[in-house]
Amino acid sequence: MPISAARLERDFQTIAGFTGSPGNGSDRPTFSEHWAKAVAYVVGEAKACGCAVRVDAAGNVHLRPAGLDPNRPVWLSGSHVDSVPHGGDFDGVLGVVAPLEVLRAAKEDGRTVPLELVNFAEEEGTTFGLGMLGSRAWVGALDRERLAAVRNRGGKSYLEAGKPHGVDPARLAEDRFRAADYLGMIELHIEQGPAMWKRGRPVAAVTAINGRRQYSVELRGTANHAGSTQMGDRRDALACAAEMIAAIERLPPEFGEQAVATVGRIACRPNAVNVIADGVSFTIDFRAPADEIIAAGDGALRTRLAVIAERRGMDFTIEQTETLPAAVMSPEVVARLRRAAERVGCGPLAETVSGALHDSAILAPHLPTAMLFVASRDGISHNPAEYSRIEDMTLATRILYEAVTE
Amino acid sequence: MPISAARLERDFQTIAGFTGSPGNGSDRPTFSEHWAKAVAYVVGEAKACGCAVRVDAAGNVHLRPAGLDPNRPVWLSGSHVDSVPHGGDFDGVLGVVAPLEVLRAAKEDGRTVPLELVNFAEEEGTTFGLGMLGSRAWVGALDRERLAAVRNRGGKSYLEAGKPHGVDPARLAEDRFRAADYLGMIELHIEQGPAMWKRGRPVAAVTAINGRRQYSVELRGTANHAGSTQMGDRRDALACAAEMIAAIERLPPEFGEQAVATVGRIACRPNAVNVIADGVSFTIDFRAPADEIIAAGDGALRTRLAVIAERRGMDFTIEQTETLPAAVMSPEVVARLRRAAERVGCGPLAETVSGALHDSAILAPHLPTAMLFVASRDGISHNPAEYSRIEDMTLATRILYEAVTE
Repeated sequence: MPISAARLERDFQTIAGFTGSPGNGSDRPTFSEHWAKAVAYVVGEAKACGCAVRVDAAGNVHLRPAGLDPNRPVWLSGSHVDSVPHGGDFDGVLGVVAPLEVLRAAKEDGRTVPLELVNFAEEEGTTFGLGMLGSRAWVGALDRERLAAVRNRGGKSYLEAGKPHGVDPARLAEDRFRAADYLGMIELHIEQGPAMWKRGRPVAAVTAINGRRQYSVELRGTANHAGSTQMGDRRDALACAAEMIAAIERLPPEFGEQAVATVGRIACRPNAVNVIADGVSFTIDFRAPADEIIAAGDGALRTRLAVIAERRGMDFTIEQTETLPAAVMSPEVVARLRRAAERVGCGPLAETVSGALHDSAILAPHLPTAMLFVASRDGISHNPAEYSRIEDMTLATRILYEAVTE
Repeated sequence: MPISAARLERDFQTIAGFTGSPGNGSDRPTFSEHWAKAVAYVVGEAKACGCAVRVDAAGNVHLRPAGLDPNRPVWLSGSHVDSVPHGGDFDGVLGVVAPLEVLRAAKEDGRTVPLELVNFAEEEGTTFGLGMLGSRAWVGALDRERLAAVRNRGGKSYLEAGKPHGVDPARLAEDRFRAADYLGMIELHIEQGPAMWKRGRPVAAVTAINGRRQYSVELRGTANHAGSTQMGDRRDALACAAEMIAAIERLPPEFGEQAVATVGRIACRPNAVNVIADGVSFTIDFRAPADEIIAAGDGALRTRLAVIAERRGMDFTIEQTETLPAAVMSPEVVARLRRAAERVGCGPLAETVSGALHDSAILAPHLPTAMLFVASRDGISHNPAEYSRIEDMTLATRILYEAVTE
């Protein structure tokens, strides 16, 4: 079986070179010049081993052996090449180059593998403000109006910015995902957390993906002079935000070790050294592996923040900006991965839960879906220091090849 | 005694009209068009009642009755007409129009009052980034190099922007404040805090001006994926900053009710909803009415923040960006204000401490100095809603007239 670590390494190096921040991590916003170069590289490699290319109306790129019968269902495997600013070189990219390598290896083996590679557009959500846009639009979970409303930093909507890259609003309704076309979905991805690396597990099957809710919080206090307003007379929006952020950090342990909460973005007005802040906005990202836990966490979050705001006499609003249910993976596909792992001789396949969301969470309600995780060094991700071992990624690619050719 | 509330009201309305943000507060950056119009209005009013005008080499405008003997010392009284963005209409302006009204009233009374009105340039520090620039340069606390280094938003230095308004670097060294020219300094100002308004005190003598230290704090943690990094595996710079801001808010009460601490500015990197922050910077403004308290607070602040950073494994630096000592007011000038208040029949004059800095803090080491505060509604200042009663400001102006003619 000629799965080639050298070819995979070349893929990673080549795609890492397509970045807006050379020497400081991957920077490939969706539909940017560097994103387009990465996609073109993958398309070129797939075409060179006999694949046909198709871009769906939502901007996702599909590559499959040209000789496959279009009426027979195949396996779907893919991920994304867009990145957060100063992101890592493996997040998403592994899930694209692994099926690419399977297609190349099968070609060398003289086999026509029943596999379609997909590159989903805008998984990260840092370009248009909403994650997994491409896969959501493909399964019909986002309509044309929503795609026209989300905008990138240059002010262009997803439809406008995506037009040169195949996005076609007129065909969106008809050119959708059809379950009958596929046997199932397998996405390879780095773990982006430290659990597997710490425990010496190179690969693991994912049995569930945490659901998440995101919120936007707005606080209004009173702007006042930092020198002449005694501590007891203040309505300080930033001090209130600080107390809330500390409370949010203490919340997840009450909901199990897989629950996490993050405040990653904050803005303060007027943001001056000698003026008490009258306005602060911040975001919350809360995730847990079951919908009941998410609902309970939502309630606790709202109550605790409201109590803090009330005590401080602060105007307070919390708006839920996104919700995604937890996604249970297909036991059949997980079993298939387990058998494939045994055949390649890497021993019993470990199982884990994904704290991060992936395109697989969007596909899972529609198609038997599972993920295969590869260990991330120290769990560092969304960071230029992100790293996974090439031998672990090669092993995972071999398992994928076995799984789709069983 | 013809101190006129109507004339004072007209002064406030006229100067409030000179703003870059009509309908949304005062916006008069130093040396801007609107600032220059406000200064010209004051100069015009003073000339109309027989005053001579002189601009010192630092850009401060001096107005005194033309008939005064230049060899006899006089009282100095003044403040500033520059404002923060979207500031109030009384901050600084009261301290300029009150001596203006004394000059006009004395003229009507047929008296030559031993009084020089001064309008200090750049008190707020929001135009050139350093407060009380004009008074500091006048007393020799800032040299020509420093004035050449500070720049406004348009990139012009204080010397360049001030040139059309009388700033003359060649004469800076000779054209300085001389203590022998003055009997003392009395500055009228609104309180900018709620204490007097709450207690029903229209005016109060200031016995000390809080000193202040300002700091810049930098935190470095690890950027990581918000979904897949368990709570115990994080080095979250924003969560660390939140704990520090909460600790800073709890600190001042240990150092007396006049001590205050404010975090007014914060920046977070990468500032994305789904990325754990790896970098946060924020400012601290700490003030107290005595230098020993400031030194003790400085020590407590540094220790507590270092402990939090250490526990969280965070890279942490704290840099002091400004220090100004506390300024004790002259007991003799305060006693003079008290006698003047009794003569105008407003009962025993209350005493207070100034939490905000003023040009008087710069003059106090060189000249017997005191301030007279007027109540601010709800303590709101640096805000378009800033408000003081015209009858309270008129009363304070009458006390000033009495004090300089005793």
